[in-house]
Amino acid sequence: MDVETPALLLDLDAFERNLDLMATFVQGRSIQLRPHAKTHRCPMISWQQIARGAIGICCQTVGEAEIMVKSGIKDVLVTNQIVSPGKARRFASLAKFAQVRCCLDHLDQLRILDEAAKVCGVQIEVLVEIDIGNGRSGVAPDDRAVELAAAVNQSGNLQFVGLQAYYGKAQSIRRYRERRAAVLDAVQEIRKTMDLLKKRNLNCQIVSGGGTGTFDIDAELGILTELQAGSYAFMDGDYLKNDADAHDLFPRFQPSLFVLASVLSYPISERAVVDVGVKNVSVDCGLPVVFGRSDVTYYGANDEHGRLNVESKANLAVGDRIWLIPGHCDPTINLYDTIIGFRNLRLEAIWPISARGASH
Amino acid sequence: MDVETPALLLDLDAFERNLDLMATFVQGRSIQLRPHAKTHRCPMISWQQIARGAIGICCQTVGEAEIMVKSGIKDVLVTNQIVSPGKARRFASLAKFAQVRCCLDHLDQLRILDEAAKVCGVQIEVLVEIDIGNGRSGVAPDDRAVELAAAVNQSGNLQFVGLQAYYGKAQSIRRYRERRAAVLDAVQEIRKTMDLLKKRNLNCQIVSGGGTGTFDIDAELGILTELQAGSYAFMDGDYLKNDADAHDLFPRFQPSLFVLASVLSYPISERAVVDVGVKNVSVDCGLPVVFGRSDVTYYGANDEHGRLNVESKANLAVGDRIWLIPGHCDPTINLYDTIIGFRNLRLEAIWPISARGASH
Repeated sequence: MDVETPALLLDLDAFERNLDLMATFVQGRSIQLRPHAKTHRCPMISWQQIARGAIGICCQTVGEAEIMVKSGIKDVLVTNQIVSPGKARRFASLAKFAQVRCCLDHLDQLRILDEAAKVCGVQIEVLVEIDIGNGRSGVAPDDRAVELAAAVNQSGNLQFVGLQAYYGKAQSIRRYRERRAAVLDAVQEIRKTMDLLKKRNLNCQIVSGGGTGTFDIDAELGILTELQAGSYAFMDGDYLKNDADAHDLFPRFQPSLFVLASVLSYPISERAVVDVGVKNVSVDCGLPVVFGRSDVTYYGANDEHGRLNVESKANLAVGDRIWLIPGHCDPTINLYDTIIGFRNLRLEAIWPISARGASH
Repeated sequence: MDVETPALLLDLDAFERNLDLMATFVQGRSIQLRPHAKTHRCPMISWQQIARGAIGICCQTVGEAEIMVKSGIKDVLVTNQIVSPGKARRFASLAKFAQVRCCLDHLDQLRILDEAAKVCGVQIEVLVEIDIGNGRSGVAPDDRAVELAAAVNQSGNLQFVGLQAYYGKAQSIRRYRERRAAVLDAVQEIRKTMDLLKKRNLNCQIVSGGGTGTFDIDAELGILTELQAGSYAFMDGDYLKNDADAHDLFPRFQPSLFVLASVLSYPISERAVVDVGVKNVSVDCGLPVVFGRSDVTYYGANDEHGRLNVESKANLAVGDRIWLIPGHCDPTINLYDTIIGFRNLRLEAIWPISARGASH
């Protein structure tokens, strides 16, 4: 690959295969795909997912949603709360261009969003986020969720349409059985909330959640209407640690995303240094894994340097290229301005990561 | 502060005090300041350091050096090796605009750089990087360093002018005595190499190294001619863990850099969620520390979320702002496009982080 390093590379064959596998998987099942764009922040990738049948996308921030709507995408769910009046107005204004929804778990957010929708002259559909075991955001999956949903419908400019029920912790439970058991427990919480909503005649059309770690279980259990998986397109080192399902019935996604490094220094036979450190690859879910060769191991990350253990008979020289599988794709992609797509080791496409840094 | 979050904020009073303290400290000592711009990647900050007497700056990548030279800075040391012929030519071409130097620790880099200098029609001064205990890059501080220096002077277009002797590991040894002992050992290695160079009549004018963790010891020991400290301008959570020197004779830098967060969700009395996660603050040297209040603690980072422990009597609401001291300033700054400077809690300046992402 004739590019300067560090570079963020995408194996287009593997990437397209991953997209196809997931698109085929959800066909004929009672779940639709709404892939999370927080993973890649790249409209060119969202468009390829939509072309394969995704009903829309998820975003995590208003900044991401703005860029995705500006790129022409017509259906965006912000899987998060909005608490600043200015941001709420920026979000509400997007409703003039696309179907945009967001999540609430508190009356204060409701008031801010309702006011913003009023100012912008739009109606906004919202999901109530419930905590199904994740221990982060979300109102309790009981009467409190129902009260919040009722309050949404009593507001002037918002409408309750469903539940946000993401279970991040379950995504990285390594063993399939335990992962499935965790999702089963969570589903009970969702079902309980749905029953309470029904009693109050609150119409829950959407239940959105799930991810790359649990997509097969989410689909099997049939309670989610929307699957928010994002990482399946790339498969980082962290997700690759998960066991597959027991019978291997479901698609196995392959790593498609790499960080290309160069050997800067090879001072002693056991150690080499590459130009990829924490500014070039995220280490919050483990160090990157060297791809395609077993004689070198990435063992330590500094800001702009990575240290490699080199085995005694390794064939390695200053200037050599090393392919790394990132431990965690989302924050790694956010370090780059472009994704370089290649096929058969030849450059084919450069896609801007248009929403890189769009956290605010 | 009337800005949307997450935002990267700089307390200008504290920042300027840090710059002044270091500038005053090196005055009259046998060391000159060459602050590292890898920390901030922001020319507007380098210019303030130069205005206070810094002789130039350090960069870690050719991309950083290009942006700094384009911003008008006339003296740049790349404290790293360059191994791609294309990058070496980009680097050599900068010599037409500024005094640019870089480091070598291998003959292969020498050949590439010599060829690039020839193509560009320039002479380049280089430093030989020696490993004084850091265990990363650097040739051994013995005859091997001398041989490489001699080879530099035998090349057609390069000139040996000194040693790069950075000791990163010593920067974060927490106890002052142990930190000093480590630097003392390292200084023996530098001295040994200098003696060998002298025997070969190789003129070592520059010994560049040191950092914010050891600057006082580096200055006292008097072997470095240039101090490469960068973090002193900001003081991240990691450096704040270091003991001060025994007698507190030397400047104490104060935290000046903050990530401003908002409380997105406050689902249960013990837990709140802010909009700052690993895409907004680096966690490779520990989680961010809440500034200015003791009733909330940042305990967990997800991609776009941070989880706060909230004490029972805390006064906290959805939408509240939380000030965070990053665990590690360099990779945190690299996540943002701008630094927002404030004084007396009012916005004063917005500086572009022009070299953000300029790793290639």
